[in-house]
Amino acid sequence: MFMGASTQQGEEIAIKSRKIVKSLIKDKISGFNLLEIDIMERIVHSTADIDYADLVRFSNNFTDIALKSLRANEDILTDITMVKSGITQYNGNVECFIKNKDVIAISKENQITRAAASVEFASQNDFEGVIVIGNAPTALFKAIELFNEGKLNVKAIIGVPVGFVAASESKEELSKSKIPYIITNGPKGGTPVAVAAINSLISKI
Amino acid sequence: MFMGASTQQGEEIAIKSRKIVKSLIKDKISGFNLLEIDIMERIVHSTADIDYADLVRFSNNFTDIALKSLRANEDILTDITMVKSGITQYNGNVECFIKNKDVIAISKENQITRAAASVEFASQNDFEGVIVIGNAPTALFKAIELFNEGKLNVKAIIGVPVGFVAASESKEELSKSKIPYIITNGPKGGTPVAVAAINSLISKI
Repeated sequence: MFMGASTQQGEEIAIKSRKIVKSLIKDKISGFNLLEIDIMERIVHSTADIDYADLVRFSNNFTDIALKSLRANEDILTDITMVKSGITQYNGNVECFIKNKDVIAISKENQITRAAASVEFASQNDFEGVIVIGNAPTALFKAIELFNEGKLNVKAIIGVPVGFVAASESKEELSKSKIPYIITNGPKGGTPVAVAAINSLISKI
Repeated sequence: MFMGASTQQGEEIAIKSRKIVKSLIKDKISGFNLLEIDIMERIVHSTADIDYADLVRFSNNFTDIALKSLRANEDILTDITMVKSGITQYNGNVECFIKNKDVIAISKENQITRAAASVEFASQNDFEGVIVIGNAPTALFKAIELFNEGKLNVKAIIGVPVGFVAASESKEELSKSKIPYIITNGPKGGTPVAVAAINSLISKI
Protein backbone atom coordinates (compact mmCIF):
# COMPACT_ATOMS: atom_id res chain seq x y z
CA MET A 1 0.00 0.00 0.00
CA PHE A 2 1.01 3.59 -0.60
CA MET A 3 1.53 6.63 1.65
CA GLY A 4 0.07 4.94 4.72
CA ALA A 5 -3.25 4.13 3.02
CA SER A 6 -4.66 0.87 4.36
CA THR A 7 -7.61 0.49 2.00
CA GLN A 8 -8.19 0.67 -1.73
CA GLN A 9 -10.25 3.85 -1.39
CA GLY A 10 -7.51 5.54 0.63
CA GLU A 11 -4.83 4.30 -1.74
CA GLU A 12 -6.64 5.65 -4.80
CA ILE A 13 -6.84 9.12 -3.24
CA ALA A 14 -3.17 8.98 -2.21
CA ILE A 15 -1.99 7.92 -5.67
CA LYS A 16 -4.04 10.56 -7.51
CA SER A 17 -2.90 13.21 -5.06
CA ARG A 18 0.74 12.25 -5.45
CA LYS A 19 0.46 12.53 -9.25
CA ILE A 20 -0.97 16.03 -8.90
CA VAL A 21 1.82 17.00 -6.49
CA LYS A 22 4.47 15.67 -8.89
CA SER A 23 3.09 17.77 -11.73
CA LEU A 24 2.76 20.87 -9.54
CA ILE A 25 6.38 20.85 -8.36
CA LYS A 26 8.14 19.26 -11.34
CA ASP A 27 9.95 22.51 -12.17
CA LYS A 28 11.34 22.84 -8.66
CA ILE A 29 13.10 19.53 -8.14
CA SER A 30 16.20 19.87 -10.30
CA GLY A 31 19.37 19.50 -8.27
CA PHE A 32 17.71 17.39 -5.57
CA ASN A 33 18.38 13.68 -5.06
CA LEU A 34 15.56 11.09 -5.18
CA LEU A 35 15.21 10.90 -1.41
CA GLU A 36 15.01 14.68 -1.18
CA ILE A 37 12.38 14.79 -3.93
CA ASP A 38 10.28 12.20 -2.12
CA ILE A 39 10.44 14.32 1.05
CA MET A 40 9.45 17.46 -0.88
CA GLU A 41 6.53 15.68 -2.52
CA ARG A 42 5.27 14.31 0.77
CA ILE A 43 5.48 17.74 2.40
CA VAL A 44 3.47 19.34 -0.41
CA HIS A 45 1.04 16.38 -0.33
CA SER A 46 0.44 16.71 3.40
CA THR A 47 0.02 20.51 3.45
CA ALA A 48 -1.46 21.12 -0.04
CA ASP A 49 0.92 24.08 -0.01
CA ILE A 50 3.14 24.30 -3.09
CA ASP A 51 5.26 27.03 -1.48
CA TYR A 52 7.11 24.33 0.42
CA ALA A 53 8.87 23.22 -2.76
CA ASP A 54 10.66 26.59 -2.64
CA LEU A 55 11.16 26.68 1.13
CA VAL A 56 12.74 23.30 1.81
CA ARG A 57 16.53 23.19 2.26
CA PHE A 58 18.78 20.22 2.92
CA SER A 59 22.39 19.93 3.98
CA ASN A 60 24.35 17.89 1.42
CA ASN A 61 24.63 14.89 3.67
CA PHE A 62 21.20 14.93 5.30
CA THR A 63 19.38 12.06 3.58
CA ASP A 64 22.39 9.70 3.66
CA ILE A 65 23.16 10.24 7.32
CA ALA A 66 19.56 10.32 8.55
CA LEU A 67 18.81 7.11 6.67
CA LYS A 68 21.91 5.42 8.10
CA SER A 69 20.78 6.27 11.63
CA LEU A 70 17.24 5.03 10.97
CA ARG A 71 18.52 1.82 9.38
CA ALA A 72 20.48 1.20 12.58
CA ASN A 73 17.19 1.60 14.50
CA GLU A 74 18.59 4.50 16.48
CA ASP A 75 16.10 6.58 18.46
CA ILE A 76 13.87 9.28 17.06
CA LEU A 77 13.15 12.19 19.43
CA THR A 78 10.17 14.47 18.68
CA ASP A 79 9.43 17.86 20.18
CA ILE A 80 5.73 17.29 20.84
CA THR A 81 3.30 14.38 21.11
CA MET A 82 1.45 15.24 17.89
CA VAL A 83 4.63 14.69 15.88
CA LYS A 84 5.24 11.37 17.64
CA SER A 85 1.65 10.29 16.85
CA GLY A 86 2.32 10.67 13.15
CA ILE A 87 5.28 8.27 13.17
CA THR A 88 3.68 4.83 13.17
CA GLN A 89 5.87 2.65 10.95
CA TYR A 90 9.29 2.82 12.66
CA ASN A 91 10.90 -0.27 14.19
CA GLY A 92 13.07 1.70 16.60
CA ASN A 93 11.98 3.88 19.54
CA VAL A 94 10.10 7.09 18.93
CA GLU A 95 10.44 9.24 22.04
CA CYS A 96 8.74 12.39 23.24
CA PHE A 97 9.66 13.48 26.74
CA ILE A 98 7.48 16.56 27.03
CA LYS A 99 5.27 15.09 29.78
CA ASN A 100 8.16 13.41 31.65
CA LYS A 101 8.44 14.50 35.30
CA ASP A 102 12.20 15.05 35.10
CA VAL A 103 11.67 17.21 32.03
CA ILE A 104 9.12 19.34 33.86
CA ALA A 105 11.62 19.72 36.70
CA ILE A 106 14.44 20.73 34.31
CA SER A 107 12.07 23.18 32.65
CA LYS A 108 11.19 24.86 35.97
CA GLU A 109 14.73 24.88 37.29
CA ASN A 110 16.25 26.40 34.15
CA GLN A 111 13.26 28.55 33.16
CA ILE A 112 13.17 27.04 29.69
CA THR A 113 10.30 25.50 27.71
CA ARG A 114 9.42 21.86 28.25
CA ALA A 115 10.37 21.18 24.64
CA ALA A 116 13.87 22.59 25.27
CA ALA A 117 14.09 20.72 28.57
CA SER A 118 13.20 17.48 26.80
CA VAL A 119 16.27 17.87 24.57
CA GLU A 120 18.38 18.55 27.68
CA PHE A 121 16.89 15.38 29.22
CA ALA A 122 17.65 13.37 26.07
CA SER A 123 21.26 14.57 26.22
CA GLN A 124 21.55 13.51 29.87
CA ASN A 125 20.18 10.08 28.93
CA ASP A 126 22.65 9.38 26.13
CA PHE A 127 20.27 9.96 23.24
CA GLU A 128 21.63 8.88 19.87
CA GLY A 129 19.68 9.32 16.67
CA VAL A 130 17.47 11.70 14.72
CA ILE A 131 15.61 14.68 16.20
CA VAL A 132 12.33 15.81 14.64
CA ILE A 133 11.13 19.30 15.56
CA GLY A 134 7.89 20.57 14.01
CA ASN A 135 6.91 23.22 16.50
CA ALA A 136 9.27 24.43 19.20
CA PRO A 137 12.15 26.69 18.10
CA THR A 138 13.39 26.57 21.71
CA ALA A 139 13.94 22.82 21.32
CA LEU A 140 15.89 23.39 18.13
CA PHE A 141 18.11 26.09 19.69
CA LYS A 142 18.77 23.76 22.64
CA ALA A 143 19.71 20.86 20.37
CA ILE A 144 22.20 23.01 18.43
CA GLU A 145 23.69 24.37 21.68
CA LEU A 146 24.15 20.91 23.20
CA PHE A 147 25.57 19.51 19.95
CA ASN A 148 28.07 22.35 19.77
CA GLU A 149 29.11 21.63 23.36
CA GLY A 150 29.65 17.96 22.47
CA LYS A 151 26.82 16.89 24.76
CA LEU A 152 24.25 15.62 22.25
CA ASN A 153 24.85 12.72 19.90
CA VAL A 154 22.32 13.80 17.30
CA LYS A 155 22.96 12.39 13.81
CA ALA A 156 20.54 14.59 11.86
CA ILE A 157 17.75 17.06 12.58
CA ILE A 158 14.44 17.57 10.83
CA GLY A 159 14.16 21.19 11.94
CA VAL A 160 10.90 22.68 10.73
CA PRO A 161 9.41 24.64 13.64
CA VAL A 162 6.53 26.89 12.62
CA GLY A 163 5.78 30.44 13.74
CA PHE A 164 6.41 34.12 13.44
CA VAL A 165 8.71 34.31 16.47
CA ALA A 166 12.09 32.54 16.71
CA ALA A 167 11.22 29.76 14.23
CA SER A 168 13.07 31.28 11.23
CA GLU A 169 16.03 32.22 13.40
CA SER A 170 16.32 28.72 14.87
CA LYS A 171 16.26 27.17 11.39
CA GLU A 172 18.91 29.58 10.10
CA GLU A 173 21.11 28.68 13.05
CA LEU A 174 20.66 24.98 12.32
CA SER A 175 21.69 25.56 8.71
CA LYS A 176 24.92 27.17 9.92
CA SER A 177 25.74 24.29 12.28
CA LYS A 178 27.57 21.06 11.46
CA ILE A 179 24.45 18.96 12.03
CA PRO A 180 22.97 17.32 8.92
CA TYR A 181 19.60 19.03 8.48
CA ILE A 182 16.41 19.67 6.62
CA ILE A 183 14.78 23.05 7.27
CA THR A 184 12.04 25.21 5.76
CA ASN A 185 13.03 28.82 5.17
CA GLY A 186 10.91 31.42 6.94
CA PRO A 187 8.05 31.05 9.44
CA LYS A 188 6.28 28.10 7.79
CA GLY A 189 6.66 24.52 8.95
CA GLY A 190 4.86 22.45 11.56
CA THR A 191 3.74 18.98 12.53
CA PRO A 192 2.64 17.71 9.07
CA VAL A 193 5.89 18.95 7.50
CA ALA A 194 8.00 17.22 10.14
CA VAL A 195 5.98 14.01 9.94
CA ALA A 196 6.07 13.95 6.13
CA ALA A 197 9.87 14.24 6.18
CA ILE A 198 10.55 11.52 8.75
CA ASN A 199 7.95 9.14 7.26
CA SER A 200 9.50 9.56 3.83
CA LEU A 201 12.85 8.42 5.21
CA ILE A 202 11.30 5.57 7.21
CA SER A 203 9.60 4.32 4.02
CA LYS A 204 13.07 4.00 2.44
CA ILE A 205 14.54 1.78 5.16
CA MET B 1 -0.82 30.68 30.81
CA PHE B 2 -1.50 31.39 27.15
CA MET B 3 -1.96 29.18 24.06
CA GLY B 4 -0.87 26.03 25.85
CA ALA B 5 2.48 27.47 26.91
CA SER B 6 3.50 25.98 30.26
CA THR B 7 6.58 28.10 30.91
CA GLN B 8 7.47 31.78 30.83
CA GLN B 9 9.76 31.28 27.80
CA GLY B 10 7.00 29.50 25.90
CA GLU B 11 4.43 32.07 26.92
CA GLU B 12 6.58 34.98 25.75
CA ILE B 13 6.91 33.42 22.30
CA ALA B 14 3.17 32.68 22.13
CA ILE B 15 2.19 36.23 23.13
CA LYS B 16 4.61 37.89 20.68
CA SER B 17 3.48 35.55 17.92
CA ARG B 18 -0.19 36.22 18.59
CA LYS B 19 0.42 39.99 18.37
CA ILE B 20 2.09 39.55 14.99
CA VAL B 21 -0.80 37.37 13.78
CA LYS B 22 -3.35 39.95 14.92
CA SER B 23 -1.60 42.69 12.98
CA LEU B 24 -1.19 40.49 9.88
CA ILE B 25 -4.87 39.60 9.60
CA LYS B 26 -6.51 42.71 11.08
CA ASP B 27 -7.99 43.71 7.71
CA LYS B 28 -9.61 40.31 7.26
CA ILE B 29 -11.67 39.92 10.42
CA SER B 30 -14.55 42.32 9.85
CA GLY B 31 -17.89 40.53 9.95
CA PHE B 32 -16.62 37.71 12.15
CA ASN B 33 -17.60 37.23 15.81
CA LEU B 34 -15.00 37.13 18.60
CA LEU B 35 -14.97 33.34 18.78
CA GLU B 36 -14.49 33.09 15.02
CA ILE B 37 -11.66 35.63 15.14
CA ASP B 38 -9.90 33.64 17.87
CA ILE B 39 -10.16 30.52 15.73
CA MET B 40 -8.78 32.37 12.67
CA GLU B 41 -5.89 33.77 14.70
CA ARG B 42 -5.00 30.38 16.12
CA ILE B 43 -5.08 28.79 12.68
CA VAL B 44 -2.72 31.43 11.27
CA HIS B 45 -0.56 31.16 14.41
CA SER B 46 -0.23 27.39 14.09
CA THR B 47 0.49 27.33 10.34
CA ALA B 48 2.29 30.68 9.87
CA ASP B 49 0.16 30.86 6.74
CA ILE B 50 -1.79 34.09 6.38
CA ASP B 51 -3.82 32.67 3.47
CA TYR B 52 -6.01 30.91 6.01
CA ALA B 53 -7.60 34.22 7.01
CA ASP B 54 -9.10 34.25 3.51
CA LEU B 55 -9.90 30.53 3.34
CA VAL B 56 -11.81 29.97 6.58
CA ARG B 57 -15.62 29.84 6.38
CA PHE B 58 -18.13 29.33 9.18
CA SER B 59 -21.83 28.57 9.16
CA ASN B 60 -23.72 31.27 11.08
CA ASN B 61 -24.42 29.05 14.03
CA PHE B 62 -21.14 27.14 14.24
CA THR B 63 -19.42 28.71 17.25
CA ASP B 64 -22.60 28.86 19.38
CA ILE B 65 -23.63 25.28 18.75
CA ALA B 66 -20.15 23.77 18.93
CA LEU B 67 -19.48 25.56 22.21
CA LYS B 68 -22.81 24.40 23.65
CA SER B 69 -21.91 20.78 22.84
CA LEU B 70 -18.43 21.15 24.36
CA ARG B 71 -19.83 22.82 27.49
CA ALA B 72 -22.08 19.79 27.91
CA ASN B 73 -18.94 17.61 27.75
CA GLU B 74 -20.26 15.75 24.73
CA ASP B 75 -17.78 13.59 22.83
CA ILE B 76 -15.22 14.81 20.33
CA LEU B 77 -14.46 12.41 17.46
CA THR B 78 -11.27 12.94 15.44
CA ASP B 79 -10.40 11.38 12.09
CA ILE B 80 -6.81 10.44 12.95
CA THR B 81 -4.66 9.96 16.03
CA MET B 82 -2.50 13.03 15.34
CA VAL B 83 -5.54 15.28 15.66
CA LYS B 84 -6.54 13.57 18.91
CA SER B 85 -3.00 14.06 20.27
CA GLY B 86 -3.35 17.81 19.88
CA ILE B 87 -6.48 18.02 22.04
CA THR B 88 -5.15 17.87 25.59
CA GLN B 89 -7.32 20.26 27.61
CA TYR B 90 -10.83 18.82 27.16
CA ASN B 91 -12.79 17.42 30.11
CA GLY B 92 -15.00 15.19 27.94
CA ASN B 93 -13.96 12.19 25.84
CA VAL B 94 -11.79 12.64 22.79
CA GLU B 95 -12.22 9.58 20.60
CA CYS B 96 -10.36 8.26 17.57
CA PHE B 97 -11.49 4.83 16.38
CA ILE B 98 -9.10 4.40 13.46
CA LYS B 99 -7.23 1.48 15.10
CA ASN B 100 -10.37 -0.16 16.52
CA LYS B 101 -10.87 -3.78 15.37
CA ASP B 102 -14.54 -3.28 14.55
CA VAL B 103 -13.61 -0.25 12.46
CA ILE B 104 -11.04 -2.26 10.53
CA ALA B 105 -13.73 -4.91 9.92
CA ILE B 106 -16.26 -2.29 8.71
CA SER B 107 -13.57 -0.81 6.47
CA LYS B 108 -12.83 -4.19 4.84
CA GLU B 109 -16.46 -5.22 4.54
CA ASN B 110 -17.60 -1.98 2.92
CA GLN B 111 -14.39 -1.21 1.02
CA ILE B 112 -14.13 2.24 2.58
CA THR B 113 -11.25 3.97 4.33
CA ARG B 114 -10.71 3.36 8.02
CA ALA B 115 -11.42 7.02 8.66
CA ALA B 116 -14.84 6.69 6.98
CA ALA B 117 -15.46 3.40 8.80
CA SER B 118 -14.70 5.08 12.12
CA VAL B 119 -17.54 7.55 11.51
CA GLU B 120 -19.83 4.62 10.65
CA PHE B 121 -18.72 2.96 13.90
CA ALA B 122 -19.38 6.15 15.87
CA SER B 123 -22.88 6.30 14.40
CA GLN B 124 -23.54 2.68 15.40
CA ASN B 125 -22.39 3.49 18.93
CA ASP B 126 -24.66 6.48 19.48
CA PHE B 127 -22.03 9.17 19.10
CA GLU B 128 -23.21 12.63 20.11
CA GLY B 129 -20.98 15.67 19.85
CA VAL B 130 -18.43 17.44 17.67
CA ILE B 131 -16.47 15.82 14.83
CA VAL B 132 -12.99 17.12 13.98
CA ILE B 133 -11.59 16.12 10.58
CA GLY B 134 -8.17 17.40 9.58
CA ASN B 135 -7.19 14.86 6.98
CA ALA B 136 -9.64 12.36 5.55
CA PRO B 137 -12.23 13.69 3.08
CA THR B 138 -13.77 10.19 3.08
CA ALA B 139 -14.58 10.61 6.79
CA LEU B 140 -16.22 13.96 6.09
CA PHE B 141 -18.33 12.59 3.21
CA LYS B 142 -19.42 9.69 5.45
CA ALA B 143 -20.39 12.03 8.31
CA ILE B 144 -22.54 14.16 5.98
CA GLU B 145 -24.16 11.04 4.49
CA LEU B 146 -25.02 9.55 7.90
CA PHE B 147 -26.29 12.90 9.21
CA ASN B 148 -28.54 13.29 6.17
CA GLU B 149 -29.92 9.78 6.78
CA GLY B 150 -30.68 10.71 10.41
CA LYS B 151 -28.12 8.19 11.67
CA LEU B 152 -25.46 10.50 13.15
CA ASN B 153 -26.10 12.88 16.02
CA VAL B 154 -23.29 15.27 15.18
CA LYS B 155 -23.76 18.79 16.55
CA ALA B 156 -21.04 20.54 14.57
CA ILE B 157 -18.12 19.61 12.32
CA ILE B 158 -14.66 21.09 12.08
CA GLY B 159 -14.17 19.97 8.49
CA VAL B 160 -10.73 20.92 7.26
CA PRO B 161 -9.32 17.91 5.39
CA VAL B 162 -6.19 18.70 3.38
CA GLY B 163 -5.25 17.53 -0.10
CA PHE B 164 -5.57 17.89 -3.83
CA VAL B 165 -8.08 15.05 -4.23
CA ALA B 166 -11.59 15.10 -2.72
CA ALA B 167 -10.77 17.49 0.14
CA SER B 168 -12.24 20.63 -1.50
CA GLU B 169 -15.29 18.71 -2.67
CA SER B 170 -15.96 17.25 0.78
CA LYS B 171 -15.76 20.71 2.36
CA GLU B 172 -18.09 22.22 -0.24
CA GLU B 173 -20.57 19.45 0.46
CA LEU B 174 -20.37 20.13 4.19
CA SER B 175 -21.06 23.81 3.57
CA LYS B 176 -24.25 22.87 1.70
CA SER B 177 -25.47 20.57 4.48
CA LYS B 178 -27.48 21.54 7.55
CA ILE B 179 -24.60 20.70 9.89
CA PRO B 180 -22.99 23.68 11.67
CA TYR B 181 -19.48 23.85 10.25
CA ILE B 182 -16.11 25.45 9.88
CA ILE B 183 -14.28 24.69 6.62
CA THR B 184 -11.28 25.98 4.69
CA ASN B 185 -11.91 26.66 1.01
CA GLY B 186 -9.73 24.74 -1.43
CA PRO B 187 -7.13 22.01 -0.85
CA LYS B 188 -5.47 23.52 2.24
CA GLY B 189 -6.23 22.37 5.78
CA GLY B 190 -4.79 19.64 7.96
CA THR B 191 -4.06 18.55 11.49
CA PRO B 192 -2.78 21.90 12.86
CA VAL B 193 -5.79 23.74 11.40
CA ALA B 194 -8.24 21.27 12.93
CA VAL B 195 -6.46 21.30 16.29
CA ALA B 196 -6.26 25.11 16.37
CA ALA B 197 -10.01 25.37 15.80
CA ILE B 198 -11.10 22.85 18.42
CA ASN B 199 -8.59 24.12 21.01
CA SER B 200 -9.83 27.67 20.51
CA LEU B 201 -13.37 26.55 21.38
CA ILE B 202 -12.20 24.43 24.32
CA SER B 203 -10.34 27.44 25.73
CA LYS B 204 -13.68 29.32 25.79
CA ILE B 205 -15.54 26.71 27.87
